[in-house]
Amino acid sequence: MLKAVQNLGCSSGFLSQLWKKAHHNTACGGLSSIAISTNPLSNSASTRTRRRHATTTKLDSFISPVFSTRGTRSETRSESNPDATTSPSSSSAGNVSKINFCQWCGGPTKHDIPDGEEKMRAICTVCDKIAYQNPKMVVGCLIEHDNKILLCKRNIEPSYDLWTLPAGYMEIGESAADGAIRETWEEAGAAVEVVSPFAQLDIPLIGQTYVIFLAKMKKPHFSPGPESSECRLFDLDDIPFDSLAFSSIFVSLNLYIDDIRSGKLKFHYGTINKRPGSSPSDMHAFSLDNHLQC
Amino acid sequence: MLKAVQNLGCSSGFLSQLWKKAHHNTACGGLSSIAISTNPLSNSASTRTRRRHATTTKLDSFISPVFSTRGTRSETRSESNPDATTSPSSSSAGNVSKINFCQWCGGPTKHDIPDGEEKMRAICTVCDKIAYQNPKMVVGCLIEHDNKILLCKRNIEPSYDLWTLPAGYMEIGESAADGAIRETWEEAGAAVEVVSPFAQLDIPLIGQTYVIFLAKMKKPHFSPGPESSECRLFDLDDIPFDSLAFSSIFVSLNLYIDDIRSGKLKFHYGTINKRPGSSPSDMHAFSLDNHLQC
Repeated sequence: MLKAVQNLGCSSGFLSQLWKKAHHNTACGGLSSIAISTNPLSNSASTRTRRRHATTTKLDSFISPVFSTRGTRSETRSESNPDATTSPSSSSAGNVSKINFCQWCGGPTKHDIPDGEEKMRAICTVCDKIAYQNPKMVVGCLIEHDNKILLCKRNIEPSYDLWTLPAGYMEIGESAADGAIRETWEEAGAAVEVVSPFAQLDIPLIGQTYVIFLAKMKKPHFSPGPESSECRLFDLDDIPFDSLAFSSIFVSLNLYIDDIRSGKLKFHYGTINKRPGSSPSDMHAFSLDNHLQC
Repeated sequence: MLKAVQNLGCSSGFLSQLWKKAHHNTACGGLSSIAISTNPLSNSASTRTRRRHATTTKLDSFISPVFSTRGTRSETRSESNPDATTSPSSSSAGNVSKINFCQWCGGPTKHDIPDGEEKMRAICTVCDKIAYQNPKMVVGCLIEHDNKILLCKRNIEPSYDLWTLPAGYMEIGESAADGAIRETWEEAGAAVEVVSPFAQLDIPLIGQTYVIFLAKMKKPHFSPGPESSECRLFDLDDIPFDSLAFSSIFVSLNLYIDDIRSGKLKFHYGTINKRPGSSPSDMHAFSLDNHLQC
């Protein structure tokens, strides 16, 4: 088929025919793969933890409007990452009123909606520059080794002593994949290569987008960095779903296990809608909405 | 098969078997799909424009280390988007030395590497807060309608009068998909729904990551917003590759056409490495590296 396409070239009619073929033969789920929450932020019985004790539950039921597995912990800070002290909290993400001065000229700011825009911004009263705030990307790796997944126990707040995938804020000057590789080295002492994109999970409430890659270790070696107290490979059946640090990690691991179960790894896009004020590790306090998979 | 999996449940041995199956049956390309640049930023004959006149060229040859099609224009500003006056330029993206004052307390900053970090940051000399800079996400839609693609002619700099997909900076408080839908409404007057994630393209030099969704119009209506002088549906064979605004749009459209030609739409991840100082619309001045597809 590929050969035929090459010889036929790029005529309009031919492309039109190919269009229909591509859309019928798409790797991406298209409209049929959309699962939209109808009951956000409520509790559901379709949980990973429960499913481990009731394994006849419909396999994809956890890709449901709501994830909810366990009780809350005592943290009050929002889902965030260790390598940015200014990481947004649920109360401050995008809170323009906290920007009081222009970082370029030092002038005081006013908080107003600029001409032609719709959102409140911090505008310098001296140089007129606008301090735009945008979501931050958190990049990380889901590392597979000998049918196990590498997790790190956090040695820092938030979510101290809870398990996570190695991940952190993407830096300017690097790609998401390079950032994920760097964070894995810093947090798990593991040199990895990225195998495939796996998930993009937006968390609008806290102004974060998680980008998770599947990766593998170049050598079977890992050791905890300063931000981790322990790194360990877990069998998929032994993943500590009761002690995960962040909803994004919970979702990523659940999606991965469901892919493994279904026999096909996919790329996932979705929105994690968190309940305002909830802790990063409260798995009762969010829903996965608009889930699309390729 | 799905039924069998449900009944078998989640025993460790069973998951181990499924693991191998999933990795052999992956929708994502895995290692075999990686195409890494060996000659970044050089010129290549594998171009979309040339291929339109030499259609027996190997179909996937454009997913090569280098894209290069046409001459440069006169713009000197880097690839950027219209809705942020502080959008990073090639010379200022991540340029911490331009942050002179603390936006929270107004104190002067010093530029130093904080303890436990490796990158230079702007640190407030009064309150000690660090002003982290992170890449910005640009979200947009590739809208398919009657086998055509909707493009907008830019009515603003940079890349004035050149064609683009509707796209702009993602805002805090929205998902990437919602941001792409909003930008499409603002720039093309089209109400769309997202069908599938299509591409993530990082541009490290300018601190941007493009996230492009496939989308369709809810009603067959569009009209240019203030930032566009014209919106038009293009046959795939008539896409104005000689007059595109940004390398990210060039790459997205090329990947899309190749997917249509191959009969299978995929999700693409890659890094666009631009030549420092090049214009946003110079298609001789970048390479697509580490291309992965699912």
